[in-house]
Amino acid sequence: MAELAKVTGVPVATVKYYAREGLLHPGHATAVNQAEYDETHVRRVKLVQALLHLGRLSIADAREVIAAVEDDTVSLHDAFGVAQDAMVPDRDRGGPAYEAALADVDRFVRRHRLRVREGAAVRLMLADALVALVACGLAPDVKDLTSLFDESVASAVASATAEVATVPVTGRRTEQMEHTVVGTVTLDVAHSAIRRMALEHASAKRFGRRQ
Amino acid sequence: MAELAKVTGVPVATVKYYAREGLLHPGHATAVNQAEYDETHVRRVKLVQALLHLGRLSIADAREVIAAVEDDTVSLHDAFGVAQDAMVPDRDRGGPAYEAALADVDRFVRRHRLRVREGAAVRLMLADALVALVACGLAPDVKDLTSLFDESVASAVASATAEVATVPVTGRRTEQMEHTVVGTVTLDVAHSAIRRMALEHASAKRFGRRQ
Repeated sequence: MAELAKVTGVPVATVKYYAREGLLHPGHATAVNQAEYDETHVRRVKLVQALLHLGRLSIADAREVIAAVEDDTVSLHDAFGVAQDAMVPDRDRGGPAYEAALADVDRFVRRHRLRVREGAAVRLMLADALVALVACGLAPDVKDLTSLFDESVASAVASATAEVATVPVTGRRTEQMEHTVVGTVTLDVAHSAIRRMALEHASAKRFGRRQ
Repeated sequence: MAELAKVTGVPVATVKYYAREGLLHPGHATAVNQAEYDETHVRRVKLVQALLHLGRLSIADAREVIAAVEDDTVSLHDAFGVAQDAMVPDRDRGGPAYEAALADVDRFVRRHRLRVREGAAVRLMLADALVALVACGLAPDVKDLTSLFDESVASAVASATAEVATVPVTGRRTEQMEHTVVGTVTLDVAHSAIRRMALEHASAKRFGRRQ
């Protein structure tokens, strides 16, 4: 385990913590108090780090994602859905504004013929954002707010299709799942960073000093 | 304060907590143990909720954002930069892979002539994502990874420009800042949700059952 820590650059205590929390599968026992770790463990430690630090998932949500990664009794696409759901934080949701937002999201999904499951948590995630836009006074009401995003769908689908195409067709099922999960988390952060850079750029142009 | 809690739909204990943590400005004292709150307090409670729950900022980072919102000694654009920096989580960063990623990010910013400050934290945020892509085996090395995002820049700038254009020109400076901060956090989540919907759609098309 000391070597696993060394190779991954993660402290031994942290690796032990991951193992205790069910985020890291056991090594192959070779003797009492001795176990062998292989490159599946190295990859898993890196994945857990990405989920916790980059994706800022809770330990409980990370555990659900890992369970979906390892569950090969369901299809790859079904496991992908379970992992996606676990990546949306639990929150108190409800009330009329929230229901109206969710209905708007449902119309958005239908309007763009997106193959997104009826109960997918990502629908709640978009509704959360719409409710906050209204609560903070950036939009008068939630009615048809999703039309703001109609023009973003085509490019999002194009880039998602390219991303999903990089998942290896052959190779172990666990590796395919790891690939899709890491892709979701890292590219989420990358695209968010680029959006924020663009915001700073636009703010500089509108409010900054002349260059 | 009980009324502020009622109007915002947030428990009294939570409102008190925000005040104690310096996230909510004091009411106008009218008598011992009595204070008046106005619609600036209602807006602030909503903003803090968006930062903590939707943006998942720490209390310390939210406090920095609020300080930038209230600091009218610097220009709107400069305050925007301070708020943007506070919205990028602190992390341990360093090492050769990280330095290489940061150099790549700097080239990306120059290549697209983005007006992003030299030391902007959002550069670190993009570097974090690149390092994780390599660490998790989705890219062979960090060299020129930002080219993956070259085609996303134009649409990100167009949508950011539209977003910044909605910031009211007149009105109090604090309101303008609240607007930009809420816009960053909520639209980040909205765009991320749409990206994830597109991923599920693309996964369904590649790995799902025929419809």
